[in-house]
Amino acid sequence: MIVALAGGVGGAKLAHGLYRILKPNELTVVVNTADDFTLYDLRICPDGDTVYYTLAGLANPATGWGVAGDTFETLAALRRYGEDTWFQLGDRDFATHLLRTQWLRSGWRLTSVWQAFTNALQVRARILPMSDDRVATVVRTPAGELAFQDYFVRRHHADEVLGVQFAGIEEAQITDEVRKAITSAESIVFCPSNPIVSIGPILAVPGMRELIHAARTAGVPVVAVSPIVGGRALRGPADRMLSGLGHEASSFAVAELYRDLLSGIVIDHEDQEEAARIETLGMHALVTRTIMENDADREQLAADVLNFIAKLRFAGGVVVGE
Amino acid sequence: MIVALAGGVGGAKLAHGLYRILKPNELTVVVNTADDFTLYDLRICPDGDTVYYTLAGLANPATGWGVAGDTFETLAALRRYGEDTWFQLGDRDFATHLLRTQWLRSGWRLTSVWQAFTNALQVRARILPMSDDRVATVVRTPAGELAFQDYFVRRHHADEVLGVQFAGIEEAQITDEVRKAITSAESIVFCPSNPIVSIGPILAVPGMRELIHAARTAGVPVVAVSPIVGGRALRGPADRMLSGLGHEASSFAVAELYRDLLSGIVIDHEDQEEAARIETLGMHALVTRTIMENDADREQLAADVLNFIAKLRFAGGVVVGE
Repeated sequence: MIVALAGGVGGAKLAHGLYRILKPNELTVVVNTADDFTLYDLRICPDGDTVYYTLAGLANPATGWGVAGDTFETLAALRRYGEDTWFQLGDRDFATHLLRTQWLRSGWRLTSVWQAFTNALQVRARILPMSDDRVATVVRTPAGELAFQDYFVRRHHADEVLGVQFAGIEEAQITDEVRKAITSAESIVFCPSNPIVSIGPILAVPGMRELIHAARTAGVPVVAVSPIVGGRALRGPADRMLSGLGHEASSFAVAELYRDLLSGIVIDHEDQEEAARIETLGMHALVTRTIMENDADREQLAADVLNFIAKLRFAGGVVVGE
Repeated sequence: MIVALAGGVGGAKLAHGLYRILKPNELTVVVNTADDFTLYDLRICPDGDTVYYTLAGLANPATGWGVAGDTFETLAALRRYGEDTWFQLGDRDFATHLLRTQWLRSGWRLTSVWQAFTNALQVRARILPMSDDRVATVVRTPAGELAFQDYFVRRHHADEVLGVQFAGIEEAQITDEVRKAITSAESIVFCPSNPIVSIGPILAVPGMRELIHAARTAGVPVVAVSPIVGGRALRGPADRMLSGLGHEASSFAVAELYRDLLSGIVIDHEDQEEAARIETLGMHALVTRTIMENDADREQLAADVLNFIAKLRFAGGVVVGE
């Protein structure tokens, strides 16, 4: 069983690659929920939705999020009523939000809601929210504190990032499902998602770092795929966020953020000169192509990650420098 | 100012005819809300929606309800998730339900919600719910007590009707807007809606019959248009409901139900032999064409109703036999 930690589009792509080359039920994806928000009184889980739509083969290939071929009639009608429809919700997508909201209100755990979706979409991987408890990313900018989707979608992540907080994180609990997945994982993969606001919240759930650290210490390979290539994020604001928070915008900086947790990191050919520096952090570096433009790329990167894991396992979990 | 009482499709057609021939802001429609129900945690107002969609020119001409040209992508996606989508909700229509639910949850009165919709849709008539309080029609059948939409839509109004109740009606209050509209009305029209479950709940709001009776007594013409033609309802189960509840399925029976309230009733040519019998109830009868197949029919029937009202007013509110 492989456990992948993922945020939205970039993470979902690698999770999809893993899903395509692993046997059914060999993959568990633990997904960020700190991007979740409420719109029209509906609970939206942008990262979770992206992951199960992607694994179900439903995701819009042009955007990475939303449902392929979806229409936007409800949104157009909301505009007619004077609503500022700054967040794109397709008509098929609305079904997900309606049911999730109804089920949560009737007392279901978020974990159970996602399970129902993956079952209905015939996804043979487990897709777990990082927690059933509400956590909300807040971005501190020169314009003030912004709710994450406000910063990310409404304001097109154009604001300088001065700080990031995860409201509610202290009270968030690791679910039994996540705990069991991590403690029984044969390997753990941090997908190429934003290290600050996608993987960051997952790792910030109290006890999560300790769980992963314990797994690594017990010899379970833990590898990340860097979302930074040539000093830039492949998509989204990860590079500017890293800079704004006083880090380099580099794969090295990503490795440093994950330092105690990783046995290895996968970086792009473009960053190969960072490999030696990364190894000074006590982890291996695999240099390969990390850009995923199509399904074949996703599978190839997933295969590279699995081979890297196999080599790390063969090395018995011994990290560079030990 | 004319006040029309209306339920769904049939009532909306005559309200639309009145709206088209009256000056802007001369029409107030008081609409049944006892058909309202909750689906996917959304508050649905089938009759209200039909009335404002119809007056806005948005209604689906084929069905009379829903939005013309609407698509059903959300519903198809809900089915994919295993939902039994027995109630047709179009994608544009969903916008109405989403906003209504959100606004109600945030503390708005239903009256204000409808006002916002009519404003946005540029309808220059007032469309008022019969009450801001929840009332729910329950239909007693051999299969047990059924929620109205269960009986009407899910089970295609095929069950025999043994009784009808309006749960919550004792506590329902007439709103200030409805009270003011009726007390200042120059005439009142009962649209050709189901007398039991469309006009019935409106009249059952405590104090409503008294308000209308007082208006009629003060000389305000109050006329109904019969929804029964040749012993059959033009649409829906009004004929079978009347029979099930021990009435004739006839315009006479409709007149009898409204007996104390009406100055006159409009019946179809097909029922002209009922006119004399109806006049024994102490009201005038106008015989004309009541079937509305297109906008011209709606306008013609509305004009006939207004002429009838003018004649009744000229008669000084004196009813037959007085």
